[in-house]
Amino acid sequence: MRDEILRLFGERLRELRTERNLSQERLAELAGLDRNYIGQIERAERNVALVNIIRIAKALEIEPGELFAPFSGARLARLR
Amino acid sequence: MRDEILRLFGERLRELRTERNLSQERLAELAGLDRNYIGQIERAERNVALVNIIRIAKALEIEPGELFAPFSGARLARLR
Repeated sequence: MRDEILRLFGERLRELRTERNLSQERLAELAGLDRNYIGQIERAERNVALVNIIRIAKALEIEPGELFAPFSGARLARLR
Repeated sequence: MRDEILRLFGERLRELRTERNLSQERLAELAGLDRNYIGQIERAERNVALVNIIRIAKALEIEPGELFAPFSGARLARLR
């Protein structure tokens, strides 16, 4: 379950970031995080915690729930 | 910002759990987590990470985004 969660979240973050034409570096700067950290999340190498999830959503100007779109309904139930 | 985020999330988790008449112990069991860990999240003592957020949402049978309802719109913008 863990790997699949990190992968879905990382892909979603990359999608939202690139839609906004933000580099990893610029997003990191807006969120007050390290640029490498953003790359690690997108590559599913980091189990990002609540406070940073909120910082990232705020920097992207989205509701945090949007980061969790890949975990809705049937996909959530299917995670093992 | 950190304390406010942990507080809002902890209160939301307690609200969703008690609405479902689940004890901390029962929720922990359903989510495969330690009972003390659930209590710590609710008391804003833990910066819970992504994988456990998903486990908790799955155990509550809700979409993860519902855990983030307190962070929508104006409240998110106001967090400093």
